[in-house]
Amino acid sequence: MTDRLEAQFAFLNEADRLKSVLRATTLVDGSRVENSGEHSWHLALYALVLADQAGPGVSIDRVIRMLLIHDLVEIDVGDVPIHSQNGQAHASLETTTAEAKAADRIFGLLPSDLAADLRALWEEFEAAETPDARFAKSLDRVQPVMANLMSGGGTWATYNVTYDQLETRVGSKIAKGAPALWDWVKGKARPWFG
Amino acid sequence: MTDRLEAQFAFLNEADRLKSVLRATTLVDGSRVENSGEHSWHLALYALVLADQAGPGVSIDRVIRMLLIHDLVEIDVGDVPIHSQNGQAHASLETTTAEAKAADRIFGLLPSDLAADLRALWEEFEAAETPDARFAKSLDRVQPVMANLMSGGGTWATYNVTYDQLETRVGSKIAKGAPALWDWVKGKARPWFG
Repeated sequence: MTDRLEAQFAFLNEADRLKSVLRATTLVDGSRVENSGEHSWHLALYALVLADQAGPGVSIDRVIRMLLIHDLVEIDVGDVPIHSQNGQAHASLETTTAEAKAADRIFGLLPSDLAADLRALWEEFEAAETPDARFAKSLDRVQPVMANLMSGGGTWATYNVTYDQLETRVGSKIAKGAPALWDWVKGKARPWFG
Repeated sequence: MTDRLEAQFAFLNEADRLKSVLRATTLVDGSRVENSGEHSWHLALYALVLADQAGPGVSIDRVIRMLLIHDLVEIDVGDVPIHSQNGQAHASLETTTAEAKAADRIFGLLPSDLAADLRALWEEFEAAETPDARFAKSLDRVQPVMANLMSGGGTWATYNVTYDQLETRVGSKIAKGAPALWDWVKGKARPWFG
């Protein structure tokens, strides 16, 4: 029991560092950039509140669990903004290789049963093939769109994003897991691009 | 549908302000104080990882949902540290009245079905009578103890807390929902107080 709790808290104390990983997106009020810890909380709340946007067969509780752990690898790798390097960096081989190594280290702090469970959940999220993972990914893409809209442009201005790029890099992924949500968000976002 | 999404996002955009509510507790590395948004994420992760510390009949998924929303009232009321005003402010009539009013406003932004669900979940947390709520409260009390231990004393030093006060204000509440967890944490905390 004691060894198990030592391992559980080694992980929970290490996870605290996600609060110091900075994202490109700002808070809704534009006052500062968001960190990946509070971003993960906000996304889990998105899942709770937007559950009616999920398709058939989606377990919101699994989606929430996924979103709670989806960014932990950023403790080692940092956040790679979706629009950075003209949209090329986020899913590059370099990034995904570094993230897999980070997952080995971070989930490896846990007792082996928990490590295996959470690692599998993270891999499911990354693969974006199950209904749960697709919905989780959709929410991860919607939240920065709302932050940009509320704060007057945000990362769209920073990275000179066009509406077509938003459709390709973000909209298409939101639509995969939550088509009606993208239809609605698109109506809000389109006018910003003029 | 459109009106419903407007209400859902009015709530989600307002909830973003929890990231600007500062707590007395610092990050594990002591670099800055924690905000209530990232704190809520960390607690939900605590529930996921420490599920084996919950008593019979506890639904970890309900505990996670509870922890995601438990501090939203702080957007209006602010965080009231457990050790502030010699331990008297946290559960004062003034605080609980202000929090109920904040819950009216904040959950009231949601569509009525969601507002009722999340308000009920928050009230269950506050009442701390069900097994789910008791376990959620235990985690809410354990996490700052770990932050204080990791950062060299934290709010115990700030508020001149004695070990007896820690037992009364914190330990007794952790023990209600997670007795074995308090036994273990106590062994870590006791030496700090000399």
